[in-house]
Amino acid sequence: MTVTNTFASAADDRVFRLVIACPDRVGLVAKVSNFLANYNGWITEASHHSDPSIGWFFMRNEIKASSLPFDIKGFVQAFQPIANEFDMQWRVEDSGVPKRVMLMASKESHCLADLLHRAHDGELPAEIIGVCSNHEDLRRMVEWYDIPFHYLPVRKETKQADFAKLNDLMAELQPDVTVLARYMQILPPELCQAFEGRVINIHHSFLPSFAGAKPYHQAYQRGVKLIGATCHYVTDLLDEGPIIDQDVIRVSHSHTIADLVRLGRDVEKAVLARGLRYHLEERVIIHENKTIVFHH
Amino acid sequence: MTVTNTFASAADDRVFRLVIACPDRVGLVAKVSNFLANYNGWITEASHHSDPSIGWFFMRNEIKASSLPFDIKGFVQAFQPIANEFDMQWRVEDSGVPKRVMLMASKESHCLADLLHRAHDGELPAEIIGVCSNHEDLRRMVEWYDIPFHYLPVRKETKQADFAKLNDLMAELQPDVTVLARYMQILPPELCQAFEGRVINIHHSFLPSFAGAKPYHQAYQRGVKLIGATCHYVTDLLDEGPIIDQDVIRVSHSHTIADLVRLGRDVEKAVLARGLRYHLEERVIIHENKTIVFHH
Amino acid sequence: MTVTNTFASAADDRVFRLVIACPDRVGLVAKVSNFLANYNGWITEASHHSDPSIGWFFMRNEIKASSLPFDIKGFVQAFQPIANEFDMQWRVEDSGVPKRVMLMASKESHCLADLLHRAHDGELPAEIIGVCSNHEDLRRMVEWYDIPFHYLPVRKETKQADFAKLNDLMAELQPDVTVLARYMQILPPELCQAFEGRVINIHHSFLPSFAGAKPYHQAYQRGVKLIGATCHYVTDLLDEGPIIDQDVIRVSHSHTIADLVRLGRDVEKAVLARGLRYHLEERVIIHENKTIVFHH
Amino acid sequence: MTVTNTFASAADDRVFRLVIACPDRVGLVAKVSNFLANYNGWITEASHHSDPSIGWFFMRNEIKASSLPFDIKGFVQAFQPIANEFDMQWRVEDSGVPKRVMLMASKESHCLADLLHRAHDGELPAEIIGVCSNHEDLRRMVEWYDIPFHYLPVRKETKQADFAKLNDLMAELQPDVTVLARYMQILPPELCQAFEGRVINIHHSFLPSFAGAKPYHQAYQRGVKLIGATCHYVTDLLDEGPIIDQDVIRVSHSHTIADLVRLGRDVEKAVLARGLRYHLEERVIIHENKTIVFHH
Repeated sequence: MTVTNTFASAADDRVFRLVIACPDRVGLVAKVSNFLANYNGWITEASHHSDPSIGWFFMRNEIKASSLPFDIKGFVQAFQPIANEFDMQWRVEDSGVPKRVMLMASKESHCLADLLHRAHDGELPAEIIGVCSNHEDLRRMVEWYDIPFHYLPVRKETKQADFAKLNDLMAELQPDVTVLARYMQILPPELCQAFEGRVINIHHSFLPSFAGAKPYHQAYQRGVKLIGATCHYVTDLLDEGPIIDQDVIRVSHSHTIADLVRLGRDVEKAVLARGLRYHLEERVIIHENKTIVFHH
Repeated sequence: MTVTNTFASAADDRVFRLVIACPDRVGLVAKVSNFLANYNGWITEASHHSDPSIGWFFMRNEIKASSLPFDIKGFVQAFQPIANEFDMQWRVEDSGVPKRVMLMASKESHCLADLLHRAHDGELPAEIIGVCSNHEDLRRMVEWYDIPFHYLPVRKETKQADFAKLNDLMAELQPDVTVLARYMQILPPELCQAFEGRVINIHHSFLPSFAGAKPYHQAYQRGVKLIGATCHYVTDLLDEGPIIDQDVIRVSHSHTIADLVRLGRDVEKAVLARGLRYHLEERVIIHENKTIVFHH
Repeated sequence: MTVTNTFASAADDRVFRLVIACPDRVGLVAKVSNFLANYNGWITEASHHSDPSIGWFFMRNEIKASSLPFDIKGFVQAFQPIANEFDMQWRVEDSGVPKRVMLMASKESHCLADLLHRAHDGELPAEIIGVCSNHEDLRRMVEWYDIPFHYLPVRKETKQADFAKLNDLMAELQPDVTVLARYMQILPPELCQAFEGRVINIHHSFLPSFAGAKPYHQAYQRGVKLIGATCHYVTDLLDEGPIIDQDVIRVSHSHTIADLVRLGRDVEKAVLARGLRYHLEERVIIHENKTIVFHH
Repeated sequence: MTVTNTFASAADDRVFRLVIACPDRVGLVAKVSNFLANYNGWITEASHHSDPSIGWFFMRNEIKASSLPFDIKGFVQAFQPIANEFDMQWRVEDSGVPKRVMLMASKESHCLADLLHRAHDGELPAEIIGVCSNHEDLRRMVEWYDIPFHYLPVRKETKQADFAKLNDLMAELQPDVTVLARYMQILPPELCQAFEGRVINIHHSFLPSFAGAKPYHQAYQRGVKLIGATCHYVTDLLDEGPIIDQDVIRVSHSHTIADLVRLGRDVEKAVLARGLRYHLEERVIIHENKTIVFHH
């Protein structure tokens, strides 16, 4: 069957991102490829991963939206029978609909400034719908970008109530993904569970080394020769969620803790921006406590 | 159609590597996937690359040999009609048949020793069929590995005759791939052309910087802060063939030329071993003067 | 001789940075060390480099300002006889006097935004005294930081007059160092010469590869597997000045030119910020067309 | 005082390596520099580190042996009064006397082969005085290099007696440094203490992550995106000794444990060779549980 596409203009460079995880079986790729070929779908990027140790198969396709005869809803309808047949966990997303991103920060500005600038520059395929902070320090920077700034203090004595407000804010804003850009507060387990797979954190160490507080101090004490940063999904187990990306930078005996903090900032920024980008482009599949990341 | 496989035992972990380059068309992936699915082929690794700037498509599949009902010859016969239909440049190779590798070296031993040890250790999927050198220095090392050592001196006055002997040797040994592991001689154009895409060189600079002779001296003079190495296919244009892999290492004002040479050796070894491995596993497709490298 | 310091308070953590280049001679280090010890100078960081190939010696000391009995002027007076005796090229700077930095940019914001944020964050020991651009695009960003924005268009027909205005501006502002943060215009030789060693450029390639225009396009055409950026001093020979720092990032066949541009931005930012920091902290000595960089 | 050197010929490029750690005091550098200058010592490399957090100072000088009027014994005699005055922990070594290195390995050959080849190639300033292994597998490789191979099995039931034999061997061979090149046995605390600061281990993880057994399995389970190796001094606390060097390599979801093992081997080799080289060149100072490494 070949279908003439009546939806999209030639200039349209949107893609549909089809992401699949399912038990491995012969014929899977053929089934999906046939589906796409039958609708004349033009595959612009394809990635597969087969994990024999657990018997699972993971797949991501980018298909030119303008080559297909339906919109996302139509795609879902058409594809659902195949998904059912193969017990797929799956999603398909339209690159033309930027994800709604909420950023959270505390007082340190480097990660926040980096993400805001990337989004402003058109580099991040995202709409920043708001910044939430437990301090007022970064308001002026955020508002320069015409992005709403939500001040939600978190105090020891009223923590539960404070986080209830955060919960309300998230319920209201409905972010697709929330980014802890050096937020420095531990989210309550309920929130972690409610937004599982949709909250990304940057931890300022090469996990699993130096989990918890003051990782640069720990690194200094241990005398490591590389320090790092880890971008991961938040779970209710502190600093133990699925890792999206990591990187390191070389340090030496001559660096003070202040130097480690300064050098680490650049790694944090880079790793968080990369990890978020992978998430936004639907390149990440969480499976158990690990990730498949189809970056190129 | 489903075919019961009568060829291979369950313990057989050989894969067939199917590598395809052709003009891009809708339905390509489906066609290949269907072919494999129809024969019950179990795809263990799949990589695609579509280059819209030139309208070409590149694909590599690893298929469990034991899942297919035919051997390589049977595969070729069965697949040829599809290849013809889509104007494919293609090949399929059996991982169980190690490639025949000829190594060439001069006096410096680091790359040669590294490759010999990797092969000996079972890390390189290759059979080293011989080492050819224009000096006797490395004979003892080679012979420890029970590998034939061919001494073919190359002298200014008799260069043409000397390379004719090399040509004879290659005609006799029939290597699948020849590796210039710091061979330090420029092969004549006829040889380059005759073995196009089958001779791999390691150049001791980050090409295109410092092509030609004495790259570490050039790097020192220029005062670069990183030095590198480049693994590439040999063509009749010196140091301009398709690049397979590159890497760099940080240097500083405190390093002498001798230090650059020493530090560079480690990069050369690593890059050459990696590039050769990609080639041996059929991960490289040469297209015009560039490579697609489906490493993971 | 021991002198009681009456200048500085205990809380003063300013350092004097003493930077020396001279022909190598026995007794040099002793002479300088004695000088500092006699005045009770507390050395907090010391770096030496001796280059036997040219017979030169290079040295950098950080001395706690509060440990010395004089200010910079006093230091210069006291040290000059030693400098004369050993034919030193030398300078001493007070870390408490931030360098005056002028930034120049064109339309692309990433390097400029990065440097402005670092300065704002207190990470760069510098006073940004102005931003000069040949376009208006970045005015709003600059003015948010309360930094004067100078719009100086550069047009083909009036280039000489346009650069005369730039010359006037620099004469007026008296920057200690000028940073071409992706300025995209070639400065006239007179300017390069007048500000030799005081204009820093970021070139978006791993020099000497891909000098000149459109380096990412050149890199794409050549099919390199790493792209880079180079921070260097500007001379009247385009892209050939002394290199301060370089770095690279891995790319593959799957990256378009747009991807290279995007990935390269992060390398450019990092390398420029690092190179500038080295310059600001008096860690760089230019000797002939190379640099000694005493980073730690 | 200037002394004419009557010891060494002009062609002599030996250096004396003077390594000092002591409480920080004004005048230290001057004292040492004067000492060297008075004897006409030609300093070819000098490195300082001052750690204000603990009030200690660390220093390493290379001095051309031929420029000094005494040999090592004479140096020690002449310098001892200064060392006493400043409470120095210090040593001075002659680069012309290669360190005696004992290597220990188990069955895996990559680290051992790498070090043997480097030593053979003249790259490591060391004399390999023997290889000790708890298996016979690597004998043939070792004996090709004309190096004594000591087979000392270590069995659960007789561990104490087995290690007593190792102790005897070390007492007999008197190595300056012992290298655990993937030895895979935990040395008894007495041995660790007896040879403190003189036994170097390569651990196949980026410590402190994945200390203990099977680090690549642990890394795979955690889903890290970089794996690493750590070269450190052995203490009686397993994998907790002072770190000399570390490095990492990028991995992804597509890598099996076998891939991690294979990729990790290259990092292990490189890090161990680097760390050992630093030790052999007297570039490492152990202070408490950390190292100062004056590499260049």
